[in-house]
Amino acid sequence: MSEKIGLFAGSFDPLHLGHVDVILRGAALFDRLIVLVGGENPQKSALLSVEKRLELVRDTFTTSKTIEVRLSDGTLTAEQAKKLGATVLVRSVRGVNDVAGEASLDFYNRELVGLETVVLFAKPEYAYVTSTAIRELLRYGKSIRAYVPEEVADALEN
Amino acid sequence: MSEKIGLFAGSFDPLHLGHVDVILRGAALFDRLIVLVGGENPQKSALLSVEKRLELVRDTFTTSKTIEVRLSDGTLTAEQAKKLGATVLVRSVRGVNDVAGEASLDFYNRELVGLETVVLFAKPEYAYVTSTAIRELLRYGKSIRAYVPEEVADALEN
Amino acid sequence: MSEKIGLFAGSFDPLHLGHVDVILRGAALFDRLIVLVGGENPQKSALLSVEKRLELVRDTFTTSKTIEVRLSDGTLTAEQAKKLGATVLVRSVRGVNDVAGEASLDFYNRELVGLETVVLFAKPEYAYVTSTAIRELLRYGKSIRAYVPEEVADALEN
Amino acid sequence: MSEKIGLFAGSFDPLHLGHVDVILRGAALFDRLIVLVGGENPQKSALLSVEKRLELVRDTFTTSKTIEVRLSDGTLTAEQAKKLGATVLVRSVRGVNDVAGEASLDFYNRELVGLETVVLFAKPEYAYVTSTAIRELLRYGKSIRAYVPEEVADALEN
Amino acid sequence: MSEKIGLFAGSFDPLHLGHVDVILRGAALFDRLIVLVGGENPQKSALLSVEKRLELVRDTFTTSKTIEVRLSDGTLTAEQAKKLGATVLVRSVRGVNDVAGEASLDFYNRELVGLETVVLFAKPEYAYVTSTAIRELLRYGKSIRAYVPEEVADALEN
Amino acid sequence: MSEKIGLFAGSFDPLHLGHVDVILRGAALFDRLIVLVGGENPQKSALLSVEKRLELVRDTFTTSKTIEVRLSDGTLTAEQAKKLGATVLVRSVRGVNDVAGEASLDFYNRELVGLETVVLFAKPEYAYVTSTAIRELLRYGKSIRAYVPEEVADALEN
Repeated sequence: MSEKIGLFAGSFDPLHLGHVDVILRGAALFDRLIVLVGGENPQKSALLSVEKRLELVRDTFTTSKTIEVRLSDGTLTAEQAKKLGATVLVRSVRGVNDVAGEASLDFYNRELVGLETVVLFAKPEYAYVTSTAIRELLRYGKSIRAYVPEEVADALEN
Repeated sequence: MSEKIGLFAGSFDPLHLGHVDVILRGAALFDRLIVLVGGENPQKSALLSVEKRLELVRDTFTTSKTIEVRLSDGTLTAEQAKKLGATVLVRSVRGVNDVAGEASLDFYNRELVGLETVVLFAKPEYAYVTSTAIRELLRYGKSIRAYVPEEVADALEN
Repeated sequence: MSEKIGLFAGSFDPLHLGHVDVILRGAALFDRLIVLVGGENPQKSALLSVEKRLELVRDTFTTSKTIEVRLSDGTLTAEQAKKLGATVLVRSVRGVNDVAGEASLDFYNRELVGLETVVLFAKPEYAYVTSTAIRELLRYGKSIRAYVPEEVADALEN
Repeated sequence: MSEKIGLFAGSFDPLHLGHVDVILRGAALFDRLIVLVGGENPQKSALLSVEKRLELVRDTFTTSKTIEVRLSDGTLTAEQAKKLGATVLVRSVRGVNDVAGEASLDFYNRELVGLETVVLFAKPEYAYVTSTAIRELLRYGKSIRAYVPEEVADALEN
Repeated sequence: MSEKIGLFAGSFDPLHLGHVDVILRGAALFDRLIVLVGGENPQKSALLSVEKRLELVRDTFTTSKTIEVRLSDGTLTAEQAKKLGATVLVRSVRGVNDVAGEASLDFYNRELVGLETVVLFAKPEYAYVTSTAIRELLRYGKSIRAYVPEEVADALEN
Repeated sequence: MSEKIGLFAGSFDPLHLGHVDVILRGAALFDRLIVLVGGENPQKSALLSVEKRLELVRDTFTTSKTIEVRLSDGTLTAEQAKKLGATVLVRSVRGVNDVAGEASLDFYNRELVGLETVVLFAKPEYAYVTSTAIRELLRYGKSIRAYVPEEVADALEN
């Protein structure tokens, strides 16, 4: 049995409990899961620096032996996957609106480098927990503790 | 590294090229993939007996060392998965219309026996290839060779 | 201020926690909420008799002063609403798949008797809790206690 | 019977006949309906100043005893609702594409301040009438009289 | 310029104003439009005999020089189209829920006999006008005059 | 038989094989198909100048007697259609997500100038081929030859 490596990529700005759940479930699927932290979308006004985001993701999964957290090098995620030995991209969908975008991504990842994608369904309790919603709550001065790991809440409420 | 076993269940009435593609891709994700052939939907007017369907699926994957084809015992798929040592159910979606049903199934499988589901996107060329469409083509006396494995076409055109 | 009366109709076969949540939230919107228990869909193989369903819904809301539980007389829901003095139909949607059917119903209720419809979103935790799913769980001998009021679980597990 | 107050918020840039229809239908649901006029989306290039929009909404509903038009103070709509004594947010959906966003909004409003949301379906004849479409028509020098109240058409065609 | 012939097929049980609108718009696209009246779905409990449906469709378009009404011979619509010299199938969609089924039909019609499909959007005012809804209204003894041609209303109200 | 003229408009930045397929299929529907090349969306960062795009579309269809390629004059597409004698707009949809936008466009084109829209379904193999995806591939230095006509690939890879 060859080692199976999965990859989960995101901007994690910030990491939330929906991410944590999918990462843990994704890690159970493979021998190893690489979590790639990137600043993929330069248009978005970032809340946290990519270094801080990397640190918070690392702190959250520090005790896991299966999960390895890395900084994205800014190139195509599919190519980084290949370079790192991952053969499967793990993605999460919340509802039907996410599906078309994911299917398109899957198509090009397969065409470009033969990368496979597996989709996990977000649990119902995380259906509306998104980094965008959390940034919005912060903009209005609301507590985000119910939706993010403790370290993230601490970092953001200072 | 413990052995990871996935399960793909269907009625395969008949097996088509979209099934074959997803089974091969699913097999690459795990150390072993069990394909469970069942007569899950008694309302549907079956085209082939469940024994014939089992035989055709077996014949198609006979050379694979990773794929094991079995007959469903008619109990809940999630419970058969557990009994067989599978921890992940492999499912395929074609488009947004399939998603709500799959998400509901995933919810109950997790609640009942802690079974995880991974979804693979059907490739674009199989977007409209369904067992229902194939049964319909046969009803009108049309060739189905473009959509099913050769053994299946041979069995059905007699 | 004239009294505002809402109406929530269903077959409640069986009543589940998603129903209970929407009924309580619907009752808070109006001065009075009528819950109409019917055997609306004769094709569906009923689990409980309409009398038993009526009894279980009544028992569940027995302490509420705002909620009144009644048996449907089998005529058009919109006309029963009118006859009972209700001006608004309360409906619940889980996701995008429910919307087209509800919008069509709303159109005809307005055209036929000027009845207005308000839609409440099911809470995420009840996203997959449906009477159909509960009947399916029972068919496979699974516990349904997590999804229905205690009285309903007692009635169904005997 | 305590007084039931609903709230309908929008940027109304400009107010159109779909808004008018939903506001009148929403007003019939409650003892009082507050219409909150805001400049919620600062990115959008505004057509009319928020003062002009407020004036046009006020003029349109001036004879109603149930509808009260107010300027948004720029804080979270859910919190303004609470401060103003409203317990229900009225929203309108045109089609399935609107639903996911509304369900997410509903989730956070309930979590943050216990605000309930009711959705009304836009009537078919207003299915494509949006402020965005009207701004686009104006940009191309087209008449908008078929889609907005007379006062709005007069204000915009000068 | 060779003659372009389109084909619009349906069970028309009964013909309604949404059908009439799409047939007239479809006829304007081609030199000739064939309307094929069939009993395509034997499961549906028919309201009118196929002969009566044919007669009502014929009566409705009797003055048109472009529209030709014919009885389906029960074989595949795509093959009848070919035999009749039609190169394009005209279909109508009301909303997103109709699209997946239409796209699948289009795929097989092109694969089987090279038949092209064009889709027209139903006008908003006919968004909820379906033969199913009309049969339901009749079942409850309601007037259907607002939704069907006069001849159809006369035939059905006797 | 009066001449039937269709119009297909786009920014073609760049022209891809999905466009080519729909243009050829659209041309077969009418006596003449006008392809209108425009810079419709000024916000998008253009890859090619509108002159270059016009040239590449012209070169691709140079041998067709039915297809006429023109530069958009920047006014409303529906009005250009009318001025050019076209009575039908040809549009393509890939999946359910495209439908709401197309239906809205169809509504206003009919309201403004009585222009009809016909929709063609993109073939499955082009389901994910979009100008946006191609620009993204180029941004990452990937080959686009599989998705565009040869002339376009030559022009873009220099």
